[in-house]
Amino acid sequence: MPTVGDYGPGVRHEDFELDEEKCWALLGSSGIGRFAFTHGGRIQVFPVHYAVHRGSVYFRTSAEGVIAAALPQEGAAFEIDSARPDAQAGWSVLVSGTASAVEDSGLLTELFGLAVEEPWAGGIRDRFVRLVPRQLTGRQVFLA
Amino acid sequence: MPTVGDYGPGVRHEDFELDEEKCWALLGSSGIGRFAFTHGGRIQVFPVHYAVHRGSVYFRTSAEGVIAAALPQEGAAFEIDSARPDAQAGWSVLVSGTASAVEDSGLLTELFGLAVEEPWAGGIRDRFVRLVPRQLTGRQVFLA
Repeated sequence: MPTVGDYGPGVRHEDFELDEEKCWALLGSSGIGRFAFTHGGRIQVFPVHYAVHRGSVYFRTSAEGVIAAALPQEGAAFEIDSARPDAQAGWSVLVSGTASAVEDSGLLTELFGLAVEEPWAGGIRDRFVRLVPRQLTGRQVFLA
Repeated sequence: MPTVGDYGPGVRHEDFELDEEKCWALLGSSGIGRFAFTHGGRIQVFPVHYAVHRGSVYFRTSAEGVIAAALPQEGAAFEIDSARPDAQAGWSVLVSGTASAVEDSGLLTELFGLAVEEPWAGGIRDRFVRLVPRQLTGRQVFLA
């Protein structure tokens, strides 16, 4: 049986792109992911509880926080991933698009009605952020 | 005993900033984190195996990939986090700074000598990326 040394580093590892359908399946209806945006000349990345609703990604934040101050923003991103260290395997999904504060009262009513876990961070976080996907890409890696 | 409803959403949740010493402790010597950078007009975020060495964050990538093509880059970021859903608690650490390809042969020798897990993705990933921290910030959230 060949060993890693027979192939050199990385050769027995494989990765492939996930199609959009698979990416939506991995996003599911809600969970914990990371919102990435530019503020003050640098990229900032924070974990958030998200929900998927009618093809967009939503999460709640504070109206006075750094995220709200950076909206609206094109080229923002949202990432989820999962790793199985025992198998040296994992996947990640990246949602790219424009992030903006939700202002529509009808949509806000829908969003507050979703069964989504409340933010863990303190204070009043009643500002919904919407990320409309322009690109949805994913990648899976594993040990062949 | 008061319930969440007595306080309104978010009021029993608290969050506080972590100092740099605590952020370095959470980074440890190695692990899985997420590198965030700008490429093609959007933020991209990918999980990587990282190592901390002499005050910088390092990881390996492919010389032909999208990360290598985007270097050097100011305002890049690296994020780690941990969540304990049972306790509605978690933390995240964000490293901000300039990311660049490591060219120094002496440093490369040191880096290849570190006991760090090999990238899980396929192909030859022998390009080390260095992120020199300019800002190191962290946050902890919990249910009070």
